Amino acid sequence: MPVGTQGTVKAISPEELREIGIRIILCNTYHLYLRPGYKVIQKLGGLHKFTNWDGVILTDSGGYQIFSISPLQKAKAEGIKFKSHIDGSEHFLTPMDVLKIQLSLGSDIAMVLDECTSYPIGYKEAKTSLEKTLRWAKMSKLAWLNEDKGERGLFGIVQGSTFKDLREKCVEELVKIGFDGYALGGLSVGEPLSLREEIIKHTGSLLPSHQPRYLMGIGTPEELLEDISLGIDMFDCALPTRIARNGTVFTRRGKKNLRNARYREDPNPLDLECDCYVCKNYSKGYIRHLIQAREILGMRLTTYHNLYFLNRLMEEARKAIKEDRFDKFKKDFIQEYQDT
Amino acid sequence: MPVGTQGTVKAISPEELREIGIRIILCNTYHLYLRPGYKVIQKLGGLHKFTNWDGVILTDSGGYQIFSISPLQKAKAEGIKFKSHIDGSEHFLTPMDVLKIQLSLGSDIAMVLDECTSYPIGYKEAKTSLEKTLRWAKMSKLAWLNEDKGERGLFGIVQGSTFKDLREKCVEELVKIGFDGYALGGLSVGEPLSLREEIIKHTGSLLPSHQPRYLMGIGTPEELLEDISLGIDMFDCALPTRIARNGTVFTRRGKKNLRNARYREDPNPLDLECDCYVCKNYSKGYIRHLIQAREILGMRLTTYHNLYFLNRLMEEARKAIKEDRFDKFKKDFIQEYQDT
Repeated sequence: MPVGTQGTVKAISPEELREIGIRIILCNTYHLYLRPGYKVIQKLGGLHKFTNWDGVILTDSGGYQIFSISPLQKAKAEGIKFKSHIDGSEHFLTPMDVLKIQLSLGSDIAMVLDECTSYPIGYKEAKTSLEKTLRWAKMSKLAWLNEDKGERGLFGIVQGSTFKDLREKCVEELVKIGFDGYALGGLSVGEPLSLREEIIKHTGSLLPSHQPRYLMGIGTPEELLEDISLGIDMFDCALPTRIARNGTVFTRRGKKNLRNARYREDPNPLDLECDCYVCKNYSKGYIRHLIQAREILGMRLTTYHNLYFLNRLMEEARKAIKEDRFDKFKKDFIQEYQDT
Repeated sequence: MPVGTQGTVKAISPEELREIGIRIILCNTYHLYLRPGYKVIQKLGGLHKFTNWDGVILTDSGGYQIFSISPLQKAKAEGIKFKSHIDGSEHFLTPMDVLKIQLSLGSDIAMVLDECTSYPIGYKEAKTSLEKTLRWAKMSKLAWLNEDKGERGLFGIVQGSTFKDLREKCVEELVKIGFDGYALGGLSVGEPLSLREEIIKHTGSLLPSHQPRYLMGIGTPEELLEDISLGIDMFDCALPTRIARNGTVFTRRGKKNLRNARYREDPNPLDLECDCYVCKNYSKGYIRHLIQAREILGMRLTTYHNLYFLNRLMEEARKAIKEDRFDKFKKDFIQEYQDT
């Protein structure tokens, strides 16, 4: 899922997303709640109409954003108190508030409010936090049953920091409550990559395989393929669009930074093996010039290409899984990708 | 002509320009000479291929940019010495250099190098400057005859500050030399609007009416119509794209600044009387949100609309002229435009 934090995937239009083949995007409840406000979006016909996007929208609960962006936040028993990063105003949201906001936005997949722990954190603290996350998950599900008409999905979020027994307990409890999908949260918060992979491997294998397993906030092409082989079905990440705006593009032979002077007179497309609109029409030399001159079109073209690249990678991964040759596909891709 | 200073009309793709109905854009020799350098563009197949724009390209000579952007410039008898606004490097360009650069870029319409005087300026100084401009124009035409194969156009630029006799002399001399079109330069440099209009009216009427008469760097919708009635055929201006990026859009009922809180929940298109892609698909409320949140898509949508608005205005003006009802058309438009 490309990330449309503020109701737009940065630099890209919804028409272009469709052209690329994207079918689902993520929007941020935290950001949209603060600006323009969910009531504004509701008055303007809901998030789909507001953004002119007729594909699927998943909204996250805002827990992670409050944790990582808000200048001051405090999780209480009943919800989270925080200050807006935009104007410093104070807010308090309960798990039910967060669900209601997502329902009023008209999102297709809502996420429950969780408490995202930092890294490192002591066992006792992680355990107390997890108990709260689980209590909120239970309350959220009950509220959901009253509000939703069965047209949307509600996902639970697995926390428990890097403690395997807490992760296990969390999965067990969430599955008892029963959600339409399960997300792995509380990762990419500063822990070493090897530890992250261990937790993904461990917890991913515990999640029900007949339901979507969603790894939040990941990642690079290699990570995506590694995590798919650990059982993950869904991802979101701002990485492809963020690095694009800085002039870095994915290619089959690894990432390339267009600011490098070697591309100054390069007549070739961003990726010789790519058939996207950008690679069919523009040279590396031109796009490099646009990036160097800080022109918006440069960011548009690199973003388009990076999203196309990852979307195609996911299409190929699905095909490889169906044809029972995913391991080879992964190995071949990573070998070529790292052979720069 | 939309302005594509650095080889891109800011925020817009060439495909979108075509969709809007644009057939000609302006690029800046000064900017492209400094970055990425004309040799790079030449190696990458010329400006059309470089930018993926198959419409007409007019390149200005850089005289005005050196005058207005370069931190240090000095016009000598043989050419202009200046410092780059990007890295402070020193450069010296003769009129012949400037033509050669434009030819190597592959521009369809080239402009001769002129000296753009500041305002106010004494008569004697203006006269001396004009003599240089005319000498350069003569040299440029001779060089052009050697270089061009009759496929491109070369325009002369009328200077003479706000002195009518100097403007008259300039037109007379330029017409003697013989160009494919004539531009009015040295305006919009700080003179009062009424004086500018007087000069446009006076000098515009002297220009050969069977050749393109081009007013550089102008302007607003009202100015465009006023100047058309004074005989002007061509314009360029960064205004529509620049104000768009700041959230200001043209409508039949005047300019609107989307940052105004009154548009927060506005479900209507930017302009109820516009049939462009943006007005067919997006609400003012959404575009306002994008502008407030500094999202690139906001700048894309407002830029698209403003270019569409002006292009349609010019189409309607041409039609009104052909049907011999331009004065009424102008009066009606301005009345509605100023009735906010």
